[in-house]
Amino acid sequence: MQLRVRAELVYVFQSATQVLASIEPAMSVDQTVLSESITVGDGVAIVRDFDEATGQRQIRTCLSGDVTILYEGVVENGTRPLLPAKAREHVWSELPLGCLPFLLPSRFCPSDKFMRFAQREFSGLPDGAAKVGAVVGWIHEHVDYVAGVSTAETTAERTFVDHAGVCRDFMHLGITLCRALNIPARAVSAYAWQLNPPDFHAVFEVYLEGHWWLVDPTGLAPVEGIVRIGCGRDAADIAFMTTSSNCECRKVAVSVEQLAP
Amino acid sequence: MQLRVRAELVYVFQSATQVLASIEPAMSVDQTVLSESITVGDGVAIVRDFDEATGQRQIRTCLSGDVTILYEGVVENGTRPLLPAKAREHVWSELPLGCLPFLLPSRFCPSDKFMRFAQREFSGLPDGAAKVGAVVGWIHEHVDYVAGVSTAETTAERTFVDHAGVCRDFMHLGITLCRALNIPARAVSAYAWQLNPPDFHAVFEVYLEGHWWLVDPTGLAPVEGIVRIGCGRDAADIAFMTTSSNCECRKVAVSVEQLAP
Amino acid sequence: MQLRVRAELVYVFQSATQVLASIEPAMSVDQTVLSESITVGDGVAIVRDFDEATGQRQIRTCLSGDVTILYEGVVENGTRPLLPAKAREHVWSELPLGCLPFLLPSRFCPSDKFMRFAQREFSGLPDGAAKVGAVVGWIHEHVDYVAGVSTAETTAERTFVDHAGVCRDFMHLGITLCRALNIPARAVSAYAWQLNPPDFHAVFEVYLEGHWWLVDPTGLAPVEGIVRIGCGRDAADIAFMTTSSNCECRKVAVSVEQLAP
Amino acid sequence: MQLRVRAELVYVFQSATQVLASIEPAMSVDQTVLSESITVGDGVAIVRDFDEATGQRQIRTCLSGDVTILYEGVVENGTRPLLPAKAREHVWSELPLGCLPFLLPSRFCPSDKFMRFAQREFSGLPDGAAKVGAVVGWIHEHVDYVAGVSTAETTAERTFVDHAGVCRDFMHLGITLCRALNIPARAVSAYAWQLNPPDFHAVFEVYLEGHWWLVDPTGLAPVEGIVRIGCGRDAADIAFMTTSSNCECRKVAVSVEQLAP
Repeated sequence: MQLRVRAELVYVFQSATQVLASIEPAMSVDQTVLSESITVGDGVAIVRDFDEATGQRQIRTCLSGDVTILYEGVVENGTRPLLPAKAREHVWSELPLGCLPFLLPSRFCPSDKFMRFAQREFSGLPDGAAKVGAVVGWIHEHVDYVAGVSTAETTAERTFVDHAGVCRDFMHLGITLCRALNIPARAVSAYAWQLNPPDFHAVFEVYLEGHWWLVDPTGLAPVEGIVRIGCGRDAADIAFMTTSSNCECRKVAVSVEQLAP
Repeated sequence: MQLRVRAELVYVFQSATQVLASIEPAMSVDQTVLSESITVGDGVAIVRDFDEATGQRQIRTCLSGDVTILYEGVVENGTRPLLPAKAREHVWSELPLGCLPFLLPSRFCPSDKFMRFAQREFSGLPDGAAKVGAVVGWIHEHVDYVAGVSTAETTAERTFVDHAGVCRDFMHLGITLCRALNIPARAVSAYAWQLNPPDFHAVFEVYLEGHWWLVDPTGLAPVEGIVRIGCGRDAADIAFMTTSSNCECRKVAVSVEQLAP
Repeated sequence: MQLRVRAELVYVFQSATQVLASIEPAMSVDQTVLSESITVGDGVAIVRDFDEATGQRQIRTCLSGDVTILYEGVVENGTRPLLPAKAREHVWSELPLGCLPFLLPSRFCPSDKFMRFAQREFSGLPDGAAKVGAVVGWIHEHVDYVAGVSTAETTAERTFVDHAGVCRDFMHLGITLCRALNIPARAVSAYAWQLNPPDFHAVFEVYLEGHWWLVDPTGLAPVEGIVRIGCGRDAADIAFMTTSSNCECRKVAVSVEQLAP
Repeated sequence: MQLRVRAELVYVFQSATQVLASIEPAMSVDQTVLSESITVGDGVAIVRDFDEATGQRQIRTCLSGDVTILYEGVVENGTRPLLPAKAREHVWSELPLGCLPFLLPSRFCPSDKFMRFAQREFSGLPDGAAKVGAVVGWIHEHVDYVAGVSTAETTAERTFVDHAGVCRDFMHLGITLCRALNIPARAVSAYAWQLNPPDFHAVFEVYLEGHWWLVDPTGLAPVEGIVRIGCGRDAADIAFMTTSSNCECRKVAVSVEQLAP
């Protein structure tokens, strides 16, 4: 699918603040950036990172005062295979080395606390795809999409108790339960076509039968319209803005428009 | 320093259990393994991982029943420079890409919750070395080394309240406070000469003025006698044993002997 | 039912330690103590409290060294009505003033965090008895009785995630869910006939249709064989031993024997 | 001091909601209400509670739609003795029975987690008054008064880490540390003369040498201008509004005016 994506961020920094921004679509094997532009304030110096292994990009800079960051790009996001009905999970010794960190607990995904629940609820299922499907089904059934009940400190544990949250919380709970089942799971930030209201989206990926499969536990946007930005252990790794101190966010405006199917 | 290190682990696995073991000294530029042997049960098949970037190693296997894992090696651990009195911290845009994850909160190091305390207590100090020194001094003054007060779920937040813990807890608190000061900090597992009673040790490293510097916030063993095993975001990444389900640990016997200065 | 109850506690106190012990059966309208004796060490001075409103008793003293506390009594525990199939819940303005504290969150029962889950899961049920029955049913279905997974710091939130615990944890979760449904619920410590292995027991009570009804969410002992000791907001209030500093517990031996039906 | 106090609360209730409101000054031995009026909506039926032991009052009712609650009163709040320089703490067996609950941890005051810190930091001081003084001094030095960093779920543990909060958080931390020192401490809600900006205030009391002593750890208002409303274990017990489900608070306007010294 060919999509035009756009993000406009307006921040106010009281003093010189270090900034990491992850808003550029990944240039990965399954996703092509056809054209793009990025502007940060009035020509502020920026460092542009590119990770060859994942195609992931980010910018680093130091900002102060009122600053607008504007990204626009046209992306061909390739074909996104849906999680199949059957897909086996790997024993650890079969996994690529790079998958191993995604078996472990992280800041917002304390999978170590969920071993008992996950085993109790899902371990009887026939294979990895069935387990991940059941995890997503469990979340659909038990968690309501409600804005305003979670904060930047909310972990999957709090969401599990509260039974409500936004896409970030759904993602954290999905990742947590998969890791507690010994299935590698990682956080993915994305532009998402047809997400309403438009915003950055958070989904996750599981590693089964030799591939990473994209899953959206909110069901709010079709997987084929997902444009990947970055991936990591949880929201801490894939935040669209990380700053060295508090600042004020005035505006986050995201749009995704289909140019060709 | 030339050191002979030895670790004997005895576990009982009720059923076939996937295992990651990180007990081999890293083969890194600053550390040479002169000779070694590892045995896992009675010739169980193992996968041996080697990460070229860090020299870090681990084994992966599947175990059941009563199993002894025995590692013995002779290591020249090189010269370990002590944290200097002065060393400047980097703005984010100067850091090597590989340092960035160590600025972020992790499972046991919720540095996002400590931003205010860390800034309040340490931000007035002149440079990165002074800040890290003050963090270590704060830990020395406020945290008691007490076995048995913490568990596998204990975070730096709980240790900060409890004012007591073991080397893992000291490490987590040190990492957390450094990250809250925007200084990259990572967990390091190690064999430690003169650690008493002998055991695996947990220390941490900070990135200042273009280098990673090793710090032992417990002060229980000289930094020059540290033999690095692995590094990661926190104890979850560097556990000497990670297993896919519960098992019984019967024995962990570690020894470190100096062969030459 | 006429029951002989006995508790032998052996503690070692390193230094003079203040102690509250709640091990005597309540002398309440529905429970008669026919005979009893209590000894604390070698004739240590004790204060004996009696609360007229509830018939609840406790002793206060200061202990050091090795101390044995021995209580023996014969109790007629009266008839304990089981939670009926139908019983309406009260609006707050109808409740006796003494019930109000049991609507609120407490140390181990953070009912404020469970409002959403409780309303989502149980609010459609026809009346208070149906809701409490559903809460107990939910606990039966989702929580396993497993010793050793919880500690003195374990809250209902951790038990809800872990899906396992002992009687104290079952009680906390039951109380928490009832309070989150706006039904007064309080913790009860007890001797319990046929509890196996014998120990102090923890159950809870809910206030519906003008009465407190006893509920055992573990289902481990018949309600008619419960001998009430004390009640309170949660385990903090009804601990059989509360001490002003750490001490070593050497032995807790409890027995309950039926003398007459 | 003779003071005119006034509170105007405006709420919107989407559906019929049970309400507890604690906004009337206590009618206690040390405080006299000279005149007062309370109106709740347009003549809604209310239950008015009065606790003889403490003089504490509250109203209970069921509200829906837009409702204004208006209280006005003239109060002579008596003489409030300041915490003296010396005052001994009691061993538990000396305490009045009613003090004992205030030794125990509660929802927002998990004193059980602070035993080690409190003993480590304050136990060497000569008596109870010195300890409480040191606790208040510690809070003054380490906690900043900052609006917006805490929520209704914030416990003393989070405040201890964050080093910031509002009067409710200062109160919780003070209570927690005193209880961890085995000194009874309870939460007090109040009108406070000269509090700026005007609002309900939260302070606490400690029991030393046979009396409850009022302490304001924020230092924002003079103790002699405090008009007591209620007391309890923590903010859960003394909230000015407790409701059976979520509602919208449109306005809370409090004023306190001195009529005579």
